[in-house]
Amino acid sequence: MTIYEESIKLHKEKGGKIGTENKISLKNAYDLSLAYTPGVAGVCKAIYEDKKKVHELTIKKNTVAIVTDGSAVLGLGNIGPEAALPVMEGKAALFKRFGDIDAFPICLNTQDTEEIIKTVKNIAPVFGGINLEDISAPRCFEIEKRLRKELDVPVMHDDQHGTATVVLAGIINALKLRNVKSKSEVRVVISGAGSAGVAVTEILLTYGIKNITVCDSRGIICDSRKDLNNTKRLLARRINTENKSGSMEDALVDSDIFIGMSAPNILSQKTVETMEDNPIIFALANPDPEITPEDAYSAGAYIVATGRSDYPNQVNNVLAFPGLFRALLGSGKQFESSIFVIAAKAIANSVDNLSVNNIIPNPFDEGIVENITTSIEKIV
Amino acid sequence: MTIYEESIKLHKEKGGKIGTENKISLKNAYDLSLAYTPGVAGVCKAIYEDKKKVHELTIKKNTVAIVTDGSAVLGLGNIGPEAALPVMEGKAALFKRFGDIDAFPICLNTQDTEEIIKTVKNIAPVFGGINLEDISAPRCFEIEKRLRKELDVPVMHDDQHGTATVVLAGIINALKLRNVKSKSEVRVVISGAGSAGVAVTEILLTYGIKNITVCDSRGIICDSRKDLNNTKRLLARRINTENKSGSMEDALVDSDIFIGMSAPNILSQKTVETMEDNPIIFALANPDPEITPEDAYSAGAYIVATGRSDYPNQVNNVLAFPGLFRALLGSGKQFESSIFVIAAKAIANSVDNLSVNNIIPNPFDEGIVENITTSIEKIV
Repeated sequence: MTIYEESIKLHKEKGGKIGTENKISLKNAYDLSLAYTPGVAGVCKAIYEDKKKVHELTIKKNTVAIVTDGSAVLGLGNIGPEAALPVMEGKAALFKRFGDIDAFPICLNTQDTEEIIKTVKNIAPVFGGINLEDISAPRCFEIEKRLRKELDVPVMHDDQHGTATVVLAGIINALKLRNVKSKSEVRVVISGAGSAGVAVTEILLTYGIKNITVCDSRGIICDSRKDLNNTKRLLARRINTENKSGSMEDALVDSDIFIGMSAPNILSQKTVETMEDNPIIFALANPDPEITPEDAYSAGAYIVATGRSDYPNQVNNVLAFPGLFRALLGSGKQFESSIFVIAAKAIANSVDNLSVNNIIPNPFDEGIVENITTSIEKIV
Repeated sequence: MTIYEESIKLHKEKGGKIGTENKISLKNAYDLSLAYTPGVAGVCKAIYEDKKKVHELTIKKNTVAIVTDGSAVLGLGNIGPEAALPVMEGKAALFKRFGDIDAFPICLNTQDTEEIIKTVKNIAPVFGGINLEDISAPRCFEIEKRLRKELDVPVMHDDQHGTATVVLAGIINALKLRNVKSKSEVRVVISGAGSAGVAVTEILLTYGIKNITVCDSRGIICDSRKDLNNTKRLLARRINTENKSGSMEDALVDSDIFIGMSAPNILSQKTVETMEDNPIIFALANPDPEITPEDAYSAGAYIVATGRSDYPNQVNNVLAFPGLFRALLGSGKQFESSIFVIAAKAIANSVDNLSVNNIIPNPFDEGIVENITTSIEKIV
């Protein structure tokens, strides 16, 4: 049986991967009178008189909505809300397992930006946080921005910021080991200007990396190109002020770091050989990376990371989102770049025995969530 | 400490009454590869290729949304979505405890009928059933009707049909014990023409009770009144074809059964004495009934039921909604009158040792859900 067939078999046996559980006993009429009528009326009144108490007396204290419209799921693309549900259930299971957070899947039957925003606002009262998932660019940027503005709970698109946070953690450790140039000196080339590419660019800039070139499938993103959407044009104006143009291969000559969130097999060994000595290669296209680790190392790579669990240095978002939401639930804070940088440093510092094959912690290592929450709590 | 203070203390300790739980193990990378990437892609593909499989492979198989706008909560009225949440959590806990159904609260930040319908349709992909709760009349009728039409999962407003189902169960047993008139002969007066009153009228008519008079706070509902909303007018035309007018007291003279879902202390002993011999009194206003059992019995009542747990014969919706949804989840059926009548008979038949103080089962009795599901399964 393939891993896919095994997975289908498991899902059929269980009828889905999560359920609800009661935190209170319901053994007799007295239990009912506390959990339900008449006692619960006291809880309702308390919240009605002081709405902030909803964060203390209800599931809003610990519950995150995982919201998707099914438009950008894994490598499958626009498969819609029903087909996306198994991924969202999986995400909920990970929130529980790693963050002890109760998360519930919300798969939307609409892909209209305004309708998505309205629907999430309408269901928001129950949730202490919103995790946007697998919503395609560029709509995901507007949706996240508007919900952060119009809701009063933390909102994060994990495909953007979870990815970016773990990428930065890996970069921090890779640069530490390489120990040649500072963060302000290294030259970074990013392949892919979708949600992950844009967010990785953002977090690297916030961290203090200055020299970043972003490429899409047509080459370097520069303002003189006529075919850019709004997000890419703003990005070009921000980071490519000299309006450099050309191919990804042009950009990679003498660069130090390649970060790919794009397509399989687009980075050749020949191109890696044109990079600066001891290049760092993060080939994150999943399941098939931009270059295999074997080929990258043969071409002279110093450190290679992928999104795959069958190679060392896996960039896995599960290192970030549980700790990020654990830290922000009920805190009154909203997600923003500086918080992701702090989390990235905490993740980087969670690695014992730093080495070229061990720059990112394993999701099953102890203490990662605590390291993230401790670091974020220190922010006023 | 009052029951309200105890309840607040419990909710503060627990931070809400329900959580999520993982049905699958997540102990190592292999577990992750089945529950999440890459294995889960197989499950997504299977659903993408055959959407019906979502009922088999995901939580949709066993999950009900509890949907409210907080407009008619318990005796508290229009308290809004946050203040309503403790009641919805309680409902979810009851679904789990009695029906082994995973239910999740959805408290809406809108009270607009069209927006409520649109929002529920947008979030519907995850849910195998929709339980509408504490939404005020008359909007609740339109919302339930439209959602039944526009969704392909069972939809039920429990304040209407859960109440009606249990009321009918009690009436069936009360008439059996009283053994004087048949169902087509008894004269019934209903006080209250909100969601419960309308639904009780409906179920009694479906059951075969013919002589029903409905009253609101201004007296008998009749077509000649100028002040009726649309629901009440249609009701008047349906059951009061002779256009009888007058007060509730007028209606009760020589009647056999009083069913109140209205206000405290509006039924006097004097009025009970004008009823037919051995009258049946269902005084369901909660927490303070239309007449106390003590007063009703003193005035000659044969059987008295209330909504309270501290008297015999409690009409408690929890006897109905778990079994109703257990039966309909994944069945392809939609809720309708005949299904509620079947459930009512199953609940009535679940009483051992039928007596005037024992016409309705206790929620903690064994076998009620099974009796309901077995009866409903027999329907083709």
